[in-house]
Amino acid sequence: MQHQVIFQPSGRRGMVERGITLLEAARELGVDIENLCGGAKVCGKCKVKIEEGFFEKFGIESSMEHLSPLQEEERDCLNEAELADNYRLACCCEVLGDVLVFVPEESRGAKQVVLETGKERKFNLNPAVRKYYVEMPEATLEDHRGDFERLREALHEHHGLPADLEIDYFVLRDLPNVVREGRWKVTATVWNNREIIRVEPGMKDTLVGLAVDIGTTTVAAYLCDLRTGQVLVVDSMMNPQVRYGEDVLSRITYSMMNEDGLEKMHQAIIEGLNTLAQRMTEKVGLLPTDIVDMTLVFNTAMQHIALCIDPKFLGRSPFAPGTKQSRNIKARDLGVNICRAAIIHTLPVESGFVGPDNVAVLIAEEPYREPEKIRLIIDIGTNGEIDLGNEKRLLCTSCATGPALEGAQIKFGMRAAPGAIEKIRINPETLEVSYKVIGQEKWYPEIQKTEAKGICGSGIIDMVAQLFRSGVIDRSGRFNMKINHPRVRRGADGKPEFVVAWAEETAIGKDITFTQADVRAVQLAKAALYVGAKYLMEKLGVDKVDSVTLAGAFGSYIDRESAMVIGMFPDCDLENVQAVGNAAGDGAKLALLDVGKREEAAWIARRVEFVETAIEPDFQTRFAAAMALPHSTDKFPHIQHILDAIPKR
Amino acid sequence: MQHQVIFQPSGRRGMVERGITLLEAARELGVDIENLCGGAKVCGKCKVKIEEGFFEKFGIESSMEHLSPLQEEERDCLNEAELADNYRLACCCEVLGDVLVFVPEESRGAKQVVLETGKERKFNLNPAVRKYYVEMPEATLEDHRGDFERLREALHEHHGLPADLEIDYFVLRDLPNVVREGRWKVTATVWNNREIIRVEPGMKDTLVGLAVDIGTTTVAAYLCDLRTGQVLVVDSMMNPQVRYGEDVLSRITYSMMNEDGLEKMHQAIIEGLNTLAQRMTEKVGLLPTDIVDMTLVFNTAMQHIALCIDPKFLGRSPFAPGTKQSRNIKARDLGVNICRAAIIHTLPVESGFVGPDNVAVLIAEEPYREPEKIRLIIDIGTNGEIDLGNEKRLLCTSCATGPALEGAQIKFGMRAAPGAIEKIRINPETLEVSYKVIGQEKWYPEIQKTEAKGICGSGIIDMVAQLFRSGVIDRSGRFNMKINHPRVRRGADGKPEFVVAWAEETAIGKDITFTQADVRAVQLAKAALYVGAKYLMEKLGVDKVDSVTLAGAFGSYIDRESAMVIGMFPDCDLENVQAVGNAAGDGAKLALLDVGKREEAAWIARRVEFVETAIEPDFQTRFAAAMALPHSTDKFPHIQHILDAIPKR
Repeated sequence: MQHQVIFQPSGRRGMVERGITLLEAARELGVDIENLCGGAKVCGKCKVKIEEGFFEKFGIESSMEHLSPLQEEERDCLNEAELADNYRLACCCEVLGDVLVFVPEESRGAKQVVLETGKERKFNLNPAVRKYYVEMPEATLEDHRGDFERLREALHEHHGLPADLEIDYFVLRDLPNVVREGRWKVTATVWNNREIIRVEPGMKDTLVGLAVDIGTTTVAAYLCDLRTGQVLVVDSMMNPQVRYGEDVLSRITYSMMNEDGLEKMHQAIIEGLNTLAQRMTEKVGLLPTDIVDMTLVFNTAMQHIALCIDPKFLGRSPFAPGTKQSRNIKARDLGVNICRAAIIHTLPVESGFVGPDNVAVLIAEEPYREPEKIRLIIDIGTNGEIDLGNEKRLLCTSCATGPALEGAQIKFGMRAAPGAIEKIRINPETLEVSYKVIGQEKWYPEIQKTEAKGICGSGIIDMVAQLFRSGVIDRSGRFNMKINHPRVRRGADGKPEFVVAWAEETAIGKDITFTQADVRAVQLAKAALYVGAKYLMEKLGVDKVDSVTLAGAFGSYIDRESAMVIGMFPDCDLENVQAVGNAAGDGAKLALLDVGKREEAAWIARRVEFVETAIEPDFQTRFAAAMALPHSTDKFPHIQHILDAIPKR
Repeated sequence: MQHQVIFQPSGRRGMVERGITLLEAARELGVDIENLCGGAKVCGKCKVKIEEGFFEKFGIESSMEHLSPLQEEERDCLNEAELADNYRLACCCEVLGDVLVFVPEESRGAKQVVLETGKERKFNLNPAVRKYYVEMPEATLEDHRGDFERLREALHEHHGLPADLEIDYFVLRDLPNVVREGRWKVTATVWNNREIIRVEPGMKDTLVGLAVDIGTTTVAAYLCDLRTGQVLVVDSMMNPQVRYGEDVLSRITYSMMNEDGLEKMHQAIIEGLNTLAQRMTEKVGLLPTDIVDMTLVFNTAMQHIALCIDPKFLGRSPFAPGTKQSRNIKARDLGVNICRAAIIHTLPVESGFVGPDNVAVLIAEEPYREPEKIRLIIDIGTNGEIDLGNEKRLLCTSCATGPALEGAQIKFGMRAAPGAIEKIRINPETLEVSYKVIGQEKWYPEIQKTEAKGICGSGIIDMVAQLFRSGVIDRSGRFNMKINHPRVRRGADGKPEFVVAWAEETAIGKDITFTQADVRAVQLAKAALYVGAKYLMEKLGVDKVDSVTLAGAFGSYIDRESAMVIGMFPDCDLENVQAVGNAAGDGAKLALLDVGKREEAAWIARRVEFVETAIEPDFQTRFAAAMALPHSTDKFPHIQHILDAIPKR
């Protein structure tokens, strides 16, 4: 005898055999209901709500009485309110008549989740690593299967995992003791439906992964809950390789000049990852070995060094990388002290210097889903990457921005951390300064004593824009030393500088200044980005862009108006300029939380067209023109009113 | 236009496009011709002989003139005799007319080879690991594929390897330098058509693997040429774990009593493997890292300890192993210092104590191919394994033999190595002894001064049989101390002993004796084997066996008559008793040289039926009866004449 079962909100329906459980019915009808224990009635994850009444739309009458009676296990897992609200465990109730079942968001196997970040990003929660609780029959003299084979067969039977599932060698080593410690009840962590990478006694539902964006200057890491898609801990550190060279080329050179140079830099970043894994898991009461999945994004040179692949051929024509495709590397092979059997996933390279970090930006921003409009995406880092186009065609290039916009090589530059000045305004008439420090709500001078220690990326861009808008520096970026104002002075080295904050306001007891050299460093960086964008526009055959997306570790705090005033990108309606924060980091997170994004990454890495710009014959000329604020010849109609308002001094 | 090409001796034929090479024609027609360079005309492996004349059988006229002219590369690779005999390189000659081609044995891709061992064993040379030479297009600004992707595509194009071939992470690390050192010409070593495990610059055709039989007492290793199937070096050592316990159970106990016991024993055997790999490769001018494949066989307890899997549950009911199936483990994960990316293959377990070593015996002896006759196979080791049956049904059991038959726990016992007495005869009238020492051609007393240092397994069996046949010991194994002869005496401990060799004959300056305790140890061992065999016979429903195969590290030297006289196995026509040497080692070699044998192992491991004998209620009674020489009640018609001739003293 059969009954009709309908699952909401998907609307999937069908006739099922009387007496099977709702969980089995869901499987038959292709409805993915969350469950860890495979129907053993212990995990309580498969909560569903039974709708009562006659439902005209479906033509069925549904009732709690069409199900077998409430079981003890359900009373243990459901609270009073849930019981009163017709909640049941799908694994416990047998179908005895027609039912309409509502599967709440939390019980859905494949959940749509919103990533909490600089920008709202929706994705399907579908991690590479999942957990399965299973109860095995005990070994007996009649049934002396191997412990592994016993586990595998139970996983196959209760969770539908492949019959030829593999097990990591080091997990196998501990297996006999673990299964007996758990009295033949264990939780297996499985990678990509293919390999068991962890087995814990009893039921354990903690499931976390780490997404890391290894920038040339900054390493940003995100500890994520793979069951909910939530980011549990965000942390970052200076790339410890900085001591071997500030930019990509100097690190490649270091590896060529020193026999153990590559190994040293490799070890440095691996130790950095281990430090992050340690302190991030500690914050939520876990161990680094609880991390069972990890995604890495980086530019191609950082990828080579992090993976200990000789980067020297990257630094010279024809710039061929050791490998371009994504890789799955055992954590232990890389020396990363997370779960020993975990498999670290690195995103693919596009081309030469356009690395996995730009692929990560693309899978986060998805310009290939934009049907018509021309999108310009700028990922600001020590190496800048630029993408231009839409679903029809997508171009990319890379440019040597230098670390200035990340606060390095700037006299008082620092990372975006508490104590960093992140926003600055200069009164164009009085030249008086107001600024905001990370970690403090109010602006100076509303508070007279600040925590200011230095200036971070967004503050640096504000700084140059404000100096320009107040006439302290001219279009060429040169200080106007005719100005008679205590803030405009010459430093100890005789070079012009602007006093951002006086010693007594700061936390460091020193004047925080912005120097002529600092202005130059920012000009070099912004010119590189601007020229790259223009080359791509020419190659794509467009003379304007419809939108600009600013990404980067500090990207969400960037003042888009300031960025356009200094000419970091071609003219665009400010309304359509968006700062999205660390999109590369978001891409790393997305690849961690949704394996589908890994496939998307492989696909887009092959599809995007790389444009080599540094070898263009007129590069130097263009670069020089782009050094000016905002540009020596190009027009910026959308901010012309601002430029017109600059006082002549 | 097409021409007919016929390949001999396979007889494969077909029409091929004019102008393709013979190598391409062979591929099209499914003829496997050896080649390393994929048609790059450099390896000289694809020699074929062109038959001339009209061949009625095939109806074609074949001629050297139906091929493109001889090329320079062919003159480099073929000698005068070969050139005179119509030899060509298949990759160099294009088909311009009908040809009949003979592919000589050495050029056939899948060769039938005979293993040089205690027994002739034919097999197909089809190793898991193969080498491929390939020339890649150089990287250019227009073609900046990754080095790995470039290599993979070249391997796909020239050798038909899968387009999704993988590469070991550590091989990838070195790849950029290796491909450039080889000027884009490299030799890739590929495991199972699936993963690149080594890349060398230029053309390198050395390809060796190591097969190892890890016995409880003895470790036997075979360095094999994977290109020819020949055994290059044979070596063995005492299992270094012996210091932690002489037999399986004492080692399991050691692991339970000492917190780091398992780890210590694991390290000991891994170091042993590393020592063997080092000294064996050294003998042929190679490095241990040149070993690119390895197979391991062992009993289940040795398997667990070697793989560092806790063996304690093996030692208690229900004796469930950690895993039963075959495993592929990265050499580096196991700590074995061969090629870092090599994958070590362990054969599957049958059941409890019947381990991969017995599976190895089975794939070497192939009793499952015997249609009718009942075969009894006894693998003599510290743990003895017995198989009985034929293609219809196959039973197996294991018995605790102890290490006596390997020379351990015997006063002057030693391994089968130079200086070991391997054959002994005692004149039943004079009690004078003649014996043969390993490493010396002639017997004592033909040479008066020998190299004798001790007695190995075959000598030990001879010893007990000869003592019995000469009436020095009685059916119960007790010394007859009424005998008045200088060789029959009491030792320093007052216990009876027999002088095998006088101090002055030996290399150790001491009398070599065989004691009452030694006789007892051999009786215990042979009784265990006998009882096991009888249980299997009952279970199978047979009262006699048609043939007996004696295997074991020293198995090929065993005197089958001596073995039957002491009652090591039930009565059988001596004609049908065969000693085959280390069949487990042969199985390890076969699995190394032919992947097909690995599949066969997986199949037979599941099919053979394990019989638990030690738990039978009448085990002790049977065991006591089997202690007698040859047995207290069972008859041995085939050697009755020998028993009848034993003098009464």
